[in-house]
Amino acid sequence: MSEQELGNILAGIGPLDERAAAEAARRLDELTKPPGSLGRLEAVAQQVAGIRGEALPELGRKAVVVMAADHGVCAEGVSAFPAEVTPQMVLNFLGGGAAVNVLSRQTGAEVVCVDIGVNAMLSHPLLRSHKVRWGTANMAEGPAMTREEAVEAIRTGIEIARGLADEGFGLLATGEMGIGNTTASSALLSVLTGEEPAAVTGRGTGIDDARLRHKQEVIRRAIAVNRPDPNDPLDVLAKVGGLEIAGLAGVILGAASRRIPVVIDGFISSAAALIAARLAPLSRDFMIASHLSEERGHARLLQELGLAPMLQLDMRLGEGTGAVLAFPLVEASLKLMREMATFGSAGVSQAAGETPAGA
Amino acid sequence: MSEQELGNILAGIGPLDERAAAEAARRLDELTKPPGSLGRLEAVAQQVAGIRGEALPELGRKAVVVMAADHGVCAEGVSAFPAEVTPQMVLNFLGGGAAVNVLSRQTGAEVVCVDIGVNAMLSHPLLRSHKVRWGTANMAEGPAMTREEAVEAIRTGIEIARGLADEGFGLLATGEMGIGNTTASSALLSVLTGEEPAAVTGRGTGIDDARLRHKQEVIRRAIAVNRPDPNDPLDVLAKVGGLEIAGLAGVILGAASRRIPVVIDGFISSAAALIAARLAPLSRDFMIASHLSEERGHARLLQELGLAPMLQLDMRLGEGTGAVLAFPLVEASLKLMREMATFGSAGVSQAAGETPAGA
Repeated sequence: MSEQELGNILAGIGPLDERAAAEAARRLDELTKPPGSLGRLEAVAQQVAGIRGEALPELGRKAVVVMAADHGVCAEGVSAFPAEVTPQMVLNFLGGGAAVNVLSRQTGAEVVCVDIGVNAMLSHPLLRSHKVRWGTANMAEGPAMTREEAVEAIRTGIEIARGLADEGFGLLATGEMGIGNTTASSALLSVLTGEEPAAVTGRGTGIDDARLRHKQEVIRRAIAVNRPDPNDPLDVLAKVGGLEIAGLAGVILGAASRRIPVVIDGFISSAAALIAARLAPLSRDFMIASHLSEERGHARLLQELGLAPMLQLDMRLGEGTGAVLAFPLVEASLKLMREMATFGSAGVSQAAGETPAGA
Repeated sequence: MSEQELGNILAGIGPLDERAAAEAARRLDELTKPPGSLGRLEAVAQQVAGIRGEALPELGRKAVVVMAADHGVCAEGVSAFPAEVTPQMVLNFLGGGAAVNVLSRQTGAEVVCVDIGVNAMLSHPLLRSHKVRWGTANMAEGPAMTREEAVEAIRTGIEIARGLADEGFGLLATGEMGIGNTTASSALLSVLTGEEPAAVTGRGTGIDDARLRHKQEVIRRAIAVNRPDPNDPLDVLAKVGGLEIAGLAGVILGAASRRIPVVIDGFISSAAALIAARLAPLSRDFMIASHLSEERGHARLLQELGLAPMLQLDMRLGEGTGAVLAFPLVEASLKLMREMATFGSAGVSQAAGETPAGA
């Protein structure tokens, strides 16, 4: 895919259908509850109505796309876990034994596992093999990947999301696995927001103070060596990003282009969401934030995106685990709109001296 | 029930089983994830193990107990909705059209609806009729109820929780309906914590600034007129509480006495939880906070209880809606413990130079 072709897809992402969202809002105000009292669930119901272009949408099947890739920056010793854990965990996803599998079984979601850049030969009937390269290069010494590779990874994500849409999936979530990918995400966040690396770099899977300082120093070095252009998201992504981050940005953009809501998981997924939002600002309206992660920088990242998380579970696992836990909340918002009684049908009195939409 | 008999039940509430909780913690550290990375879900899994006395408990059926009652203080004009909405909403619960019904159908929970003090004649095959009195008296003029009535309402809640335990329910939640009950809850919170009424009194179902100031003034008057003893929870409950609040305190105490976890809904349910915790401090270990409500004072109330909410949805509906939304999170915590692969079984490497419980 050329950048021109990518640009055409980005240009095709349209705004929310305000008429459908307003119709959903009117419907919500007729239900037997004080106006607005379902809080974020009402906002999500209106958002999904605006995405789908109908007040009472049905979303159908749901899936979490788990993109896996390796990071050359692991050579700098930035993670508590060895890089071999990336392919090991991919096999765990495929075997159904990881946290995201358990939570997906609980919530009735499918796990779509994609090798977009694992630094190991992987083969499995359930694995979607779309290796763009065998892990990124060490960004502390030069660009993590080429600009063309970044576009190719985005294209892969777009096509996977669109393929899932064609298969009848109407609700997607982002998930990832890649030892070293909080380092890349913090670097992206630092460049795209101008925050100091130390302010947006955390402990990842659990490193100690000394290694945290080292990680922050590696990010500083990567930015100094590569000098990414903050106004060019593809440049930033290629120089200090990751293949799974690029792939997830593609999933988000692909979902938005097919008008499907996409639930954003934690820190790394939110970094991908920020890339997507910088490439296509309207894609933001198709994103639903799931949880606030323990990882330092996640709150800043969500603030930059203008998204508010629904869950606060102090999680820091990734894989899409927080996003999958938010699937039932999205579904609840629509089920409430479909199934609750109205003031009229239930014979319930409304607030005295107020319109249903008041106060 | 005499206060002596109540005291015997309270004395029978024991601590968590530390051995089972520690076994659950060990199990959690063997699973394929960085230690502690499932955050609050790990804490809930350990708590439930400690409650049930086994590392891998099965909870069985779940129910939300929705206690309904009226409040004489409504005569002061403290709510946006007329008091007739209490019985109307009870019929809505029984007809399956309220938000708590929709969410309970989604999460596979039963709604147990209890008339513990509605100021109207109600009869329905699904309604549990345990009217202690026809609404409270106006607390701005004198005690809301007698001490004996408060004990009777607590007893009712205890017996309902124990009955549900006998029927095979292993996970309960608290819910309520009662126009005027944020006023009673704020009064309880103010007396039990020493906070100024204005600091812990919010807009309930949605009152404007003038009515909010009036509501705060009514609470000040109720406290001045009744002079409840902050060191005597039954005195506070009887003088400025509510029948559904007393009943829910009973549900929590009954659940704790049968070693069943109980999910606490929003502001009013948390006020009931504070009464329960003051009557039997160990009952706190059986509570799981669900969501942080929009209602002013809820954060303070949860802080007083030492509980952290898992959901932040800006809801302010009550009924048990937030608690029912948290049922899947409790179930997820146990399902993860049962079904996730271990480092050993999945052949995944652990963190370098760290014990599984480290960092």
